[in-house]
Amino acid sequence: MVRAGIIGSTGYAGAEIARLLIRHKDVEIKWLVSRSFAGQAYEDIYRNLFELIEKECSDISLKEMARSVDVIFTATPQGYLQGELTKDILEDCRIIDMSADYRIKNVEIYEKWYGIEHHSPELLDEAVYGLTEINRDSIKDTRLLANPGCFTTCSILTAYPLMKEHLIDKDGLVINALSGVSGAGRGAKTANLFCEVNESAKAYGVTTHRHTPEIEEQLGYAFGEKVTVQFTPHLIPMHRGIYATETARLKKKCSYEDIKAVYEKYYSKEKFIRLLKKDMCPETRFVEGSNYTDIGFRIDERTGNIILMGALDNLEKGAASQAVQNFNVMFGFPEEEGIDMIPMVP
Amino acid sequence: MVRAGIIGSTGYAGAEIARLLIRHKDVEIKWLVSRSFAGQAYEDIYRNLFELIEKECSDISLKEMARSVDVIFTATPQGYLQGELTKDILEDCRIIDMSADYRIKNVEIYEKWYGIEHHSPELLDEAVYGLTEINRDSIKDTRLLANPGCFTTCSILTAYPLMKEHLIDKDGLVINALSGVSGAGRGAKTANLFCEVNESAKAYGVTTHRHTPEIEEQLGYAFGEKVTVQFTPHLIPMHRGIYATETARLKKKCSYEDIKAVYEKYYSKEKFIRLLKKDMCPETRFVEGSNYTDIGFRIDERTGNIILMGALDNLEKGAASQAVQNFNVMFGFPEEEGIDMIPMVP
Amino acid sequence: MVRAGIIGSTGYAGAEIARLLIRHKDVEIKWLVSRSFAGQAYEDIYRNLFELIEKECSDISLKEMARSVDVIFTATPQGYLQGELTKDILEDCRIIDMSADYRIKNVEIYEKWYGIEHHSPELLDEAVYGLTEINRDSIKDTRLLANPGCFTTCSILTAYPLMKEHLIDKDGLVINALSGVSGAGRGAKTANLFCEVNESAKAYGVTTHRHTPEIEEQLGYAFGEKVTVQFTPHLIPMHRGIYATETARLKKKCSYEDIKAVYEKYYSKEKFIRLLKKDMCPETRFVEGSNYTDIGFRIDERTGNIILMGALDNLEKGAASQAVQNFNVMFGFPEEEGIDMIPMVP
Amino acid sequence: MVRAGIIGSTGYAGAEIARLLIRHKDVEIKWLVSRSFAGQAYEDIYRNLFELIEKECSDISLKEMARSVDVIFTATPQGYLQGELTKDILEDCRIIDMSADYRIKNVEIYEKWYGIEHHSPELLDEAVYGLTEINRDSIKDTRLLANPGCFTTCSILTAYPLMKEHLIDKDGLVINALSGVSGAGRGAKTANLFCEVNESAKAYGVTTHRHTPEIEEQLGYAFGEKVTVQFTPHLIPMHRGIYATETARLKKKCSYEDIKAVYEKYYSKEKFIRLLKKDMCPETRFVEGSNYTDIGFRIDERTGNIILMGALDNLEKGAASQAVQNFNVMFGFPEEEGIDMIPMVP
Repeated sequence: MVRAGIIGSTGYAGAEIARLLIRHKDVEIKWLVSRSFAGQAYEDIYRNLFELIEKECSDISLKEMARSVDVIFTATPQGYLQGELTKDILEDCRIIDMSADYRIKNVEIYEKWYGIEHHSPELLDEAVYGLTEINRDSIKDTRLLANPGCFTTCSILTAYPLMKEHLIDKDGLVINALSGVSGAGRGAKTANLFCEVNESAKAYGVTTHRHTPEIEEQLGYAFGEKVTVQFTPHLIPMHRGIYATETARLKKKCSYEDIKAVYEKYYSKEKFIRLLKKDMCPETRFVEGSNYTDIGFRIDERTGNIILMGALDNLEKGAASQAVQNFNVMFGFPEEEGIDMIPMVP
Repeated sequence: MVRAGIIGSTGYAGAEIARLLIRHKDVEIKWLVSRSFAGQAYEDIYRNLFELIEKECSDISLKEMARSVDVIFTATPQGYLQGELTKDILEDCRIIDMSADYRIKNVEIYEKWYGIEHHSPELLDEAVYGLTEINRDSIKDTRLLANPGCFTTCSILTAYPLMKEHLIDKDGLVINALSGVSGAGRGAKTANLFCEVNESAKAYGVTTHRHTPEIEEQLGYAFGEKVTVQFTPHLIPMHRGIYATETARLKKKCSYEDIKAVYEKYYSKEKFIRLLKKDMCPETRFVEGSNYTDIGFRIDERTGNIILMGALDNLEKGAASQAVQNFNVMFGFPEEEGIDMIPMVP
Repeated sequence: MVRAGIIGSTGYAGAEIARLLIRHKDVEIKWLVSRSFAGQAYEDIYRNLFELIEKECSDISLKEMARSVDVIFTATPQGYLQGELTKDILEDCRIIDMSADYRIKNVEIYEKWYGIEHHSPELLDEAVYGLTEINRDSIKDTRLLANPGCFTTCSILTAYPLMKEHLIDKDGLVINALSGVSGAGRGAKTANLFCEVNESAKAYGVTTHRHTPEIEEQLGYAFGEKVTVQFTPHLIPMHRGIYATETARLKKKCSYEDIKAVYEKYYSKEKFIRLLKKDMCPETRFVEGSNYTDIGFRIDERTGNIILMGALDNLEKGAASQAVQNFNVMFGFPEEEGIDMIPMVP
Repeated sequence: MVRAGIIGSTGYAGAEIARLLIRHKDVEIKWLVSRSFAGQAYEDIYRNLFELIEKECSDISLKEMARSVDVIFTATPQGYLQGELTKDILEDCRIIDMSADYRIKNVEIYEKWYGIEHHSPELLDEAVYGLTEINRDSIKDTRLLANPGCFTTCSILTAYPLMKEHLIDKDGLVINALSGVSGAGRGAKTANLFCEVNESAKAYGVTTHRHTPEIEEQLGYAFGEKVTVQFTPHLIPMHRGIYATETARLKKKCSYEDIKAVYEKYYSKEKFIRLLKKDMCPETRFVEGSNYTDIGFRIDERTGNIILMGALDNLEKGAASQAVQNFNVMFGFPEEEGIDMIPMVP
């Protein structure tokens, strides 16, 4: 059994990792860390897990925990891990980090968009960006896995094959994305009260959202050159779900079959990426609670654009289940172990 | 592999049975019957199952299907099965019926509350009421399983131990229950449109709801005498969930520990019934998507009443997962096979 | 123009009072008090009021404000007003209080249920309980108006005529009530986050909810003797709305017409109480955003019970619009001035 | 009193017109037409209007009604009015049409996008497109008012000043829009059931939505040349609201103040268009239930784009209240008469 710890275990992403690991055949949860809830029974906080997990929340340090487990999932605020992590700790155990601390290779870009100093830039080199379907090979051996963001996973997977094949303009991509409210976390903020977000929609982080440089960096690797995107996220009243609608200019005339073939080239063997049938648009409900990313597209011959649409569950493929998927790759387990949930409708 | 068919497979309960059986190790789905969708790919109707099920909907008759499968789940409107079922069909295969057709032993009561004639009263005797935790022994060998209703499962399980032990008045039970909208089915009715039910609450079926005689019959078996309840259901804006709040008069002074002991006497070994800690009230979100029933209670010394509260997922323990639980008992599989889901929060 | 101030103006009830008063022909809002938002433009907090109100939040004291206005609405936490109010202040201006501080005549009961000491019991005598339709005459001349709670307004108005006429048992009333989330206020609490309350239902305050003694006191006045009720509130995922389902034992056999006549005796001239047609159940959406209370009932001849159902908007008739209705009575304006909104569907 | 009739009065837009006209000082509702509900009391269908409107639904023809009223609101399916309307009818009364039948001047474009033949193209010339703030002068005298669509009103008002002033590219506009579910109407369709749309988001009508040519035509008038847009609508789980996020390429470097000045040039005197403060994004909840359109924008110096955001209520400014606003202009009443509602939060 692989021994695991979760830091930030009472946030929504941390709790989802815990829930998934309970059913993972090869994992034993050793530590559930939460500073605010230290000493409380975990099942009292997440009462869906009542009688399913007996641990209390603890306040053990990263360093100390590293010596008693094989892997640590850090579902912590931006800046926490890069301030604590050292090469010594990585000698003791492997890390799967849900924050952005090691996602962006360029320290300056990280510091500019996140507004905080990076305290362990020397570890950036060995960090692997955990978009499983794209980086599977390098994920296998890494000690430091930077698990991608929710908007970014969806935005990148949806556009990746077309960027890789240079079928769309590298600088005109307009990404409008929708997010469920769980993406905002479990912190007690007025802005996330039921009565503030229900029955409403709004854009936020316009021109400044931190997932922008992450998308640009990864799509840049795909294209082979610097890529610029206009990313505008919106908050809408649902628990879970990311929906990315990407408007791109086709560099040449393409048929439905042309585009389909390109998606299939990259994804036809991917269990967790489903290319929908012709003219079907993804819906977040059809991926909710699962590790799937559903992708559809439609060419507009009138305008010369192509509209790409991707949908995933922000807490699963956008966080927890992708983390477990990466864990499986890192530790040599079947990739779907523990994350093979079928979306539930309604 | 047990060969199974589902009639009424495109309703919410039928689709949930299909979804559960896909992951059941010992079942092969042979037929997905739907008159309205015959010939259409099932994955096009329930696109959460895209790439997970390859069958088309068919229009095969009950009689014909019975010869090619071991078990048939009927998720059909009231009256369908009692009009079609015969002893011959039961010779061929076993039936798990989600409707009320064989739940009520007294034909007159059935005909009065449902307003339809019963065409196969001769089969009522062998039908077993499938409240798994209560009737497990007789479920094992039945050919005709009457799967309980959603409100009734919740209402009965919550009050059963106290009725059985004669701790509460047999005639004063006031059950107020809340239901998510999926209980109203997938039919295209104006009354169930998003804009008609969202942001609203209402009582319905007041004094006339058909789950009333079902609750009374089963609690009557528990008490040993005829029981009368006042059952008032409400529709509230959520997908899934039944919440039953039952106000009962305690026949004698009882302490928290007294009541707790009675619940534990009946349920402490039941995996899928969770008696909550002192003073905790169930919440439907903590059972959503699972086979659990969560139960809490509180004694009011001021009034001499006890308030019992139960919560379950109407499409799971209130329909599909209890059907599979009963299936497991009937066919000798581990009771939790295929239905051991952990509720997902949020 | 009547000069008004609102203390606690940035909570949901306070903000609704502000919104109503903007459209009141005879009122000028002088002060919007909020300790936490002092100095901020009110339109930046409630951006629905953008360009409609130019005031900043201030931190002026009750005493000082009293000298510059004619009426103060206090939408403040329990205990605030009884700790601050004096006879001197009441010489300067009239008070309409949204809290429970002066609702309950018996100080011991207040202190027991609220768990706080009452610092101005000498003012209780002159306070008038502002259930407009019941106490209109004494409301006219009061200086201190105790505006009723949301559950209580709904529960009392629904049962009042039958209690008054001694048609139902005075001790067996079971009130199950549902509340939208705005009743929990605008405080930043994890429990009220969208992801904690959406898609769920739960009972709370079982046997201990503070509206219990308020309902009992008022129904006791109606009956002429002490009344006991079993009140169980539930939280459900909608913004606004109170739904009270009351199960009562009829003291003698009554027909639909008998009961209807009793309701009409008390309410037929009441604009804001609507007795629904036979067999119709109220729905909260049909009163949302308005000052209406909708009432329906159904007799169960089988059990000898009657089921009463009432619906109102917790922020309107359950708080703000009833406060303005009382204000109109107190200051001699037409009772519907400023609160004659038609519910909006959907 | 102006005598009015509403055809299609039981759909959501028709019912909202009825609700607004009840409170309009100068209007008497003479006819509420609904083929499916003919003979039924209107208050039984829209029970929010219980005791507020006494009419029954009738099935009177357009032609006959025209002789007994001054104005007819047609909230009817596409194609109805252009199949029925004649010059004779327009001699009898004025028409305010909620459908697209007379919105698009070019018959070929109408027939192509709507897939139906136009039977009264000779009336297109005198029809006036009822975007009140833009076409106020020509609205005054028209007999045939084509009330704009919900997406179009929002999309056009948000981009109009910048298009008019040639500040953005005329062919690169990417409009991603979100709609509440009431836009899909009150028809009994499975796709609009609570359990199908709640907790989900999806794009629809991608590259084919019929509001595209309407937006292009009107923005073309503003720019003075043919304009092409890429319009992608999405359905999200809320009752009301349109949110348009428009990504445009700035033709030259502009400061915040430059853009603000352009918006103010066109809208500073418009009561119902609110230009938000710097860096504020609209939210649909802040306009819900009102005639307001809220607009915000943000320049992205990094990409050279500007992001424009508009929000309105699809049933109000996107349908009913704009229809009444146009009615007020046509009949010489104050523009805000009957539609001066303040958005309600929460």
